[in-house]
Amino acid sequence: MKLDSSGLQVLTEAECLRLLASAPIGRIVFTDRALPAVQPVTFCLDGDAIVIRTGLGSKLAAATRRTVVAFEVDDYDPVLRTGWSVSVVGHADAVTDPAEMSRLAMLPIEPWAPGSRDHFIRVRVEQVSGRRITRGHSN
Amino acid sequence: MKLDSSGLQVLTEAECLRLLASAPIGRIVFTDRALPAVQPVTFCLDGDAIVIRTGLGSKLAAATRRTVVAFEVDDYDPVLRTGWSVSVVGHADAVTDPAEMSRLAMLPIEPWAPGSRDHFIRVRVEQVSGRRITRGHSN
Repeated sequence: MKLDSSGLQVLTEAECLRLLASAPIGRIVFTDRALPAVQPVTFCLDGDAIVIRTGLGSKLAAATRRTVVAFEVDDYDPVLRTGWSVSVVGHADAVTDPAEMSRLAMLPIEPWAPGSRDHFIRVRVEQVSGRRITRGHSN
Repeated sequence: MKLDSSGLQVLTEAECLRLLASAPIGRIVFTDRALPAVQPVTFCLDGDAIVIRTGLGSKLAAATRRTVVAFEVDDYDPVLRTGWSVSVVGHADAVTDPAEMSRLAMLPIEPWAPGSRDHFIRVRVEQVSGRRITRGHSN
């Protein structure tokens, strides 16, 4: 088992992608008016990309056109103090091709919030890394 | 109940601070070699600041000196599809005053990872905002 300098278990890329596909909620990290911003979203892993649905006029839609973003998923047990996190960095862009939008509309992305969600953001999974904290297995 | 343009309930500042104080894990959002980065951390709310312990030589320590960061906590129920999130934006800095470091060492921050954690990062809570998704109360 590979450990990083903080003693956390380093996850393989395959494990990162498996965990990424399993998470119901992720957090997209972007820049909003020159300040760091983070927003939880539902999403779907579609090939080598994360697909997010949002409203066309949303702050998220405006802030994620042709830029690099981070995306994070995690799961923790606060009692056992164990858990894992996976982070992705990649180029984000709006999907504008009508045929591609029709295809993405069939993906099982279920926004929890009310309102229309006619805008698709695609984040390429260009860098992925993950860590896990376990108990009794850190040596 | 105030709703935002996406139909999410807007939390008051008092509610945001209460939820922030209740969360076992938060995610600090920073810039690492010109790329957006996000890392889960344990933390403590100390007055108007978030306090994080990390290793002196950590990537997080290096990337959070005299800069503006975001910090996010959330909690979701994937079955009910309800939850909340709170985001903070503020100036981060290393705590270097020995008396202040001694005081912060007494705070109930429990890093889950092994290894020394002799470096304190303080994030001023300068902007705070939060949203909640409920079922059957969105109108």
